[in-house]
Amino acid sequence: MPSFNSFMPTPKTLMGPGPSDVSERVLAALSRPTIGHLDPEFVGLMDEIKQLLRYAFRTENQITFPISAPGSAGMEACVVNLIEPGDKVVVCINGVFGGRMKDNVERAGGIPIIVDDEWGRPVSIEKVEEALARVPDAVALGFVHAETSTGVRSDAEALCGLAKAQGCLTIVDAVTSLGGIPLKLDEWGVDAVYSGSQKCLSAPPGLSPVSFSNRALEKVRSRKSIVQSWFLDLTLMLGYWDGAGERSYHHTAPINAMYGLHESLVMLSDEGLEAAWSRHREMHLLLEQGLARLGINYLVPAEHRLPQLNSVLIPAHLQNQEAEIRQRLLSEHKLEIGAGLGTLAGKIWRIGLMGHGASRKNIELCLGAMEEVIQGT
Amino acid sequence: MPSFNSFMPTPKTLMGPGPSDVSERVLAALSRPTIGHLDPEFVGLMDEIKQLLRYAFRTENQITFPISAPGSAGMEACVVNLIEPGDKVVVCINGVFGGRMKDNVERAGGIPIIVDDEWGRPVSIEKVEEALARVPDAVALGFVHAETSTGVRSDAEALCGLAKAQGCLTIVDAVTSLGGIPLKLDEWGVDAVYSGSQKCLSAPPGLSPVSFSNRALEKVRSRKSIVQSWFLDLTLMLGYWDGAGERSYHHTAPINAMYGLHESLVMLSDEGLEAAWSRHREMHLLLEQGLARLGINYLVPAEHRLPQLNSVLIPAHLQNQEAEIRQRLLSEHKLEIGAGLGTLAGKIWRIGLMGHGASRKNIELCLGAMEEVIQGT
Repeated sequence: MPSFNSFMPTPKTLMGPGPSDVSERVLAALSRPTIGHLDPEFVGLMDEIKQLLRYAFRTENQITFPISAPGSAGMEACVVNLIEPGDKVVVCINGVFGGRMKDNVERAGGIPIIVDDEWGRPVSIEKVEEALARVPDAVALGFVHAETSTGVRSDAEALCGLAKAQGCLTIVDAVTSLGGIPLKLDEWGVDAVYSGSQKCLSAPPGLSPVSFSNRALEKVRSRKSIVQSWFLDLTLMLGYWDGAGERSYHHTAPINAMYGLHESLVMLSDEGLEAAWSRHREMHLLLEQGLARLGINYLVPAEHRLPQLNSVLIPAHLQNQEAEIRQRLLSEHKLEIGAGLGTLAGKIWRIGLMGHGASRKNIELCLGAMEEVIQGT
Repeated sequence: MPSFNSFMPTPKTLMGPGPSDVSERVLAALSRPTIGHLDPEFVGLMDEIKQLLRYAFRTENQITFPISAPGSAGMEACVVNLIEPGDKVVVCINGVFGGRMKDNVERAGGIPIIVDDEWGRPVSIEKVEEALARVPDAVALGFVHAETSTGVRSDAEALCGLAKAQGCLTIVDAVTSLGGIPLKLDEWGVDAVYSGSQKCLSAPPGLSPVSFSNRALEKVRSRKSIVQSWFLDLTLMLGYWDGAGERSYHHTAPINAMYGLHESLVMLSDEGLEAAWSRHREMHLLLEQGLARLGINYLVPAEHRLPQLNSVLIPAHLQNQEAEIRQRLLSEHKLEIGAGLGTLAGKIWRIGLMGHGASRKNIELCLGAMEEVIQGT
């Protein structure tokens, strides 16, 4: 057995698809003394986290809390609680995460009806309308609000409107949208939503805020079959997160991670949700201008771009060296940007301006570093 | 929207069933700068965590890593990967967590064959032998090595020996045993094991170290059905944790929580595993002597006691005030001890001496505080 040392990570600027830069305030919160998961002080913290998440999600949903696992588990929680074997679900795929939702629906025994759109384009409202008309007994419509793999925003309000008109539930992936662009659960009629701590909230990865409408809760309560996951069974989780008076033990919550999430939500509420949305938009426009000067263009048409996730086309003459360029940014400039995924691998870079990282300082670093590395290539 | 403040938890001494006291070293590690989950530095950390876990588990299993969620998810990961619909599993229940394993087996479509033992007693070797003889086609034997709900150690070596003789797999709950009492995967022939970060490793809750033998991996690879959980599908997780050369994206790992787990494992390897086992044993005997002086006796016969989880009978004249006593320990002495669960609620207290908290300082605090509060009751 060799001997091991404490891990001292090199500080980096995180401008990839997440995790995003975590502020000193949130890092400090993580290292406060661990207390018990049933301690009244911790229960008080849980109550504040629920209130702060309702604010961030723009909802009055009682059932709003963070799942003790990453965003992918949040997706699975929404699917396995709402979808029973044989349930038809219209699933929109315009990137990696729509595909993941389809996989989750199938594993839950549901029948996915796929609406396919090109990667880099939003979910087509017309195609969803057609699909819902073709499948009048669809139980739910699932789509990704902000596709982290492509940098595309889909029109969640319009999509939820279509589902509502037909009386079917909506499952919305808001992993990258929460805190970065307008997301209004109650106004839009979202029934189940999951997000992640490590994108525009700028807490470390590991927690997945979720929220369920009363309609969603009715569907869970009227299930004929048991939820296939014990860990993600909503009714069991609620005994801990929503117990009236006494909280019952379900699993042991990740105490220190909750300190970090709480701090990041306090920072968001101090800034104000609308102000955070505006800041993301302004920083995005600033980055766009700078990239244009470097001759770098966007994959996504302007009206569908996510300010927090800038997917840009790698100039043709640099595509062969794209991995090397990212590696040099990381090693020489301590700057992380993201690679393309799936069909977009090697063709795009993904530059995150998320939460705490949506700042002039980061943009200046990024533009300067990219210019230097590209010129030296 | 009211305004919210940073959360400043009152430092507590954690002598309940977990989370256990987290050292300053581990707390400091948590707040180091977040880096990317595919960053080569982080991949290096993952490799060290795997090596350190193999040391702690006493195994050469290649597939040894922490799942990005609490111990309950680790249990579910073992069950949903190894058990297919129709598979028969002998499940031993002598406390809360055996019951949870049965629930998990049922949700995975498996058929649990229950071996029931009294809470506070170990799993009966004879009953398991009979059950295995009755069910020669059992695919697996599942049991809890260290029952956190009762403070009982079962004879994992003997139980694994029975399963091995019959050629069936073993699924072992080592949530509370890892780092606190001897646990020897390879020597005993454990096929699948899950633990938790927040017990004798003394990291914060939220991660579940697991390990799978080659036999277990063969069972996973020869499945006829797809694993019902996307998040916990072992073959998908391995693309990230065990990718040859390049790691593929599965979910975003909880970076800072991994820093904490790593630090706790470095501390364990610095102390030495055997030394840690001895320390738990010595501290347990010291606590036992002190409790005897207070007239407090153990639920579990001496030979089956867990040193790290002391379940003690609440004296009859104090049972009515047991919740008040725990509350006063917490508020006046900043000391957390655990309540009984299930049928043992109101009858026992659970006093943890886990990891960093298995110390003379904690024992003195506990005995002094209990004496004071009980005399004042």
